[in-house]
Amino acid sequence: MDQFDLTSRLAADAPAPAPRFTGFPRYNFIGGHNDPALIPLPGLIEAARAALGRDGTKLAMYNLSQGPQGYLPLRQFVAGKLAGHRGIKGTAEDVLITSGSGQGIDFVNRLLVAPGDTVLIEEFSYAGAITRARQSGAKVIGLPLDAHGIRIDALETILADLAARDIRPKYIYTIPTIQNPTGSILPLDRRQALVALSARFGVPIFEDECYADLLWHGVAAPPALRALAPSQVVHIGSFSKSLAPALRLGYASADWPMLARMIACKADGGTGAIDQMVAAEYFTHHFTGHVATLSTGLAAKLAVMQDALAAEFGTAVETWAPEGGIFLWMKLPDSVDVRALVAPALAAGIAFNPGPEWAVDAEAAKSQLRLCFALPTAQEIREGVAAFARVCREVTGIPPRSANIAHPGD
Amino acid sequence: MDQFDLTSRLAADAPAPAPRFTGFPRYNFIGGHNDPALIPLPGLIEAARAALGRDGTKLAMYNLSQGPQGYLPLRQFVAGKLAGHRGIKGTAEDVLITSGSGQGIDFVNRLLVAPGDTVLIEEFSYAGAITRARQSGAKVIGLPLDAHGIRIDALETILADLAARDIRPKYIYTIPTIQNPTGSILPLDRRQALVALSARFGVPIFEDECYADLLWHGVAAPPALRALAPSQVVHIGSFSKSLAPALRLGYASADWPMLARMIACKADGGTGAIDQMVAAEYFTHHFTGHVATLSTGLAAKLAVMQDALAAEFGTAVETWAPEGGIFLWMKLPDSVDVRALVAPALAAGIAFNPGPEWAVDAEAAKSQLRLCFALPTAQEIREGVAAFARVCREVTGIPPRSANIAHPGD
Repeated sequence: MDQFDLTSRLAADAPAPAPRFTGFPRYNFIGGHNDPALIPLPGLIEAARAALGRDGTKLAMYNLSQGPQGYLPLRQFVAGKLAGHRGIKGTAEDVLITSGSGQGIDFVNRLLVAPGDTVLIEEFSYAGAITRARQSGAKVIGLPLDAHGIRIDALETILADLAARDIRPKYIYTIPTIQNPTGSILPLDRRQALVALSARFGVPIFEDECYADLLWHGVAAPPALRALAPSQVVHIGSFSKSLAPALRLGYASADWPMLARMIACKADGGTGAIDQMVAAEYFTHHFTGHVATLSTGLAAKLAVMQDALAAEFGTAVETWAPEGGIFLWMKLPDSVDVRALVAPALAAGIAFNPGPEWAVDAEAAKSQLRLCFALPTAQEIREGVAAFARVCREVTGIPPRSANIAHPGD
Repeated sequence: MDQFDLTSRLAADAPAPAPRFTGFPRYNFIGGHNDPALIPLPGLIEAARAALGRDGTKLAMYNLSQGPQGYLPLRQFVAGKLAGHRGIKGTAEDVLITSGSGQGIDFVNRLLVAPGDTVLIEEFSYAGAITRARQSGAKVIGLPLDAHGIRIDALETILADLAARDIRPKYIYTIPTIQNPTGSILPLDRRQALVALSARFGVPIFEDECYADLLWHGVAAPPALRALAPSQVVHIGSFSKSLAPALRLGYASADWPMLARMIACKADGGTGAIDQMVAAEYFTHHFTGHVATLSTGLAAKLAVMQDALAAEFGTAVETWAPEGGIFLWMKLPDSVDVRALVAPALAAGIAFNPGPEWAVDAEAAKSQLRLCFALPTAQEIREGVAAFARVCREVTGIPPRSANIAHPGD
């Protein structure tokens, strides 16, 4: 057999081949990257030395000989952070370390969702959460948002309508603290109303706090939903935003009956050990200082991006006002379909996340988009936003005028 | 709702809850642990310093900004190792870093196996490979083994019988170089015959070389199957045995059409970055020396275990003769069902892997078992084997006499 092609034996539902990776464009506003200048290298190197020196022989054992929940000092740090910053009581025994928060989302869908089930997700949300729910066979219903998160009146109507049809959703997925992509914080009274609705209709809450460590100076967040109603909530979080996404470190916190099922799903032989050791060692000593420095740097970049958008797009863009995090969510005029901008923007060296991929109803979000301001430098933000405005105008005629006309040197 | 129980909403096929981890027993002969004394701590600490110092800012980007195939220096090391040690041509572009070799097994099953398909696996094999194939819905047929691996005559008969019934298996899973659990090496003539049968019957080979780096001094292995017939073989390997299992680092090598599908399966956001960086940096400089030291240490522990078994079990145990690796596979008399020994052994502080879990036909392997000699010290091996012999005799009457009678001080 000269031409043996393994792929001729593929299962019918095998995914399409991945393209070869060819690098990122010059102006990279996509995804959840962080600021390279704010990776605390000396601290991480010292943490690696200290943690390996103390616990390195444990690398010879799967899970560092500490069981599938993860490296004990990391779980202890998470439990302390959740108690001290988010009001969630518990110990290291209540925490599962996951290989990124995406693994936590996988586990919750694996455990709760059967094909045909219904789940509720904020109308604009993390693409990975929407996609994973749908891959599990769920019907996804969007929850209307305003500047402060889920609109409780709308949620109540949706839950009541579903109950009237004997449909009980498997979960309400929410990012209440620095919502992705809008950057809002759900106020305490809405949190209380949300957990009350969850209890009344018997619908679990799936709380994702991946961005909750990154609040602008002076901004305070109410307690986590799991702090308000522990038994009703599966809570997940991540070190991707507070430290670095390449580490692949997330965590889950839930009451033991649910956590024990999530642990049963963790068939990957554990999460990478040195990543866990370094994160635990570094954050045990430097968490508060690091997230303060990081948030200050990110807030400054957000201001640069807001200024650039105002200068380049003027009134043609409506931006949300994030209270932390790494994303800016915005809307162009209804006549603009941002999907038509993806290819010409890429050709001009610009990558952005089109709103339809971050929305339960793709069509309704066709004029919206998300920009990440964490990775590019201030200069790249200014140049990239100007370049994006040029592409947008060439394709759509919008914005009709912008700063780059007045300042052709841009 | 006072008693909100998330688990009341579980999908019907949700797994059973995991038990709380309570630590390992004193004499731990299970799993693929390594020797804690042979973890090269100073080298790993230096590697962390060097790699983080050079590439640490890339942690701010998913996949270190190098795409889903993994950290480039690690892929370069793997490509060089495969070329230099295993005869597999290729570059870093032909390698996918996986989160443990188990992820590679997941991907191959995901891509090739649909429920009802048939796969062929060596009659004694890695439990995770047998389990994952069955979880994918495959019917698993066992391939008879002798001291040199797959019996080619038996494989030919099985393939011909299946072909006569219009059944074409999706793959032949084999561990040709330091077979798990038997420790055998498939000779070159059998490798050539195996790839010829693969081509003749159009059945892909799924080659797992997780243990191939650990050969006893003076033992040489023929080229990998993928070296002999690149297009017919998906090849996977691991750093769990050559460096440390807690790192969760494996790799896959396949022609691009298949590798591109495996990359498409890698939806985990990448493999842990610092683990990749440390392994790449350390092994780029120290691979040959480290595996030589490690193999020497493991061979010495094997000799201790063989001596202990001879002293404690005498002729009641038939052991295979591994040519490398970390496992010893053995058989007790037919009257012994090792499954009856698991609980009393645990009660005596001894954990072993019962043969039925490492066999396609569990019942036929009821008198066999696997012991890992890498983790325990020489003294623990001696004490543990003696303790195991006592348990075995109490439960089964076998062995009727052993060294621990002659030496009650044991």
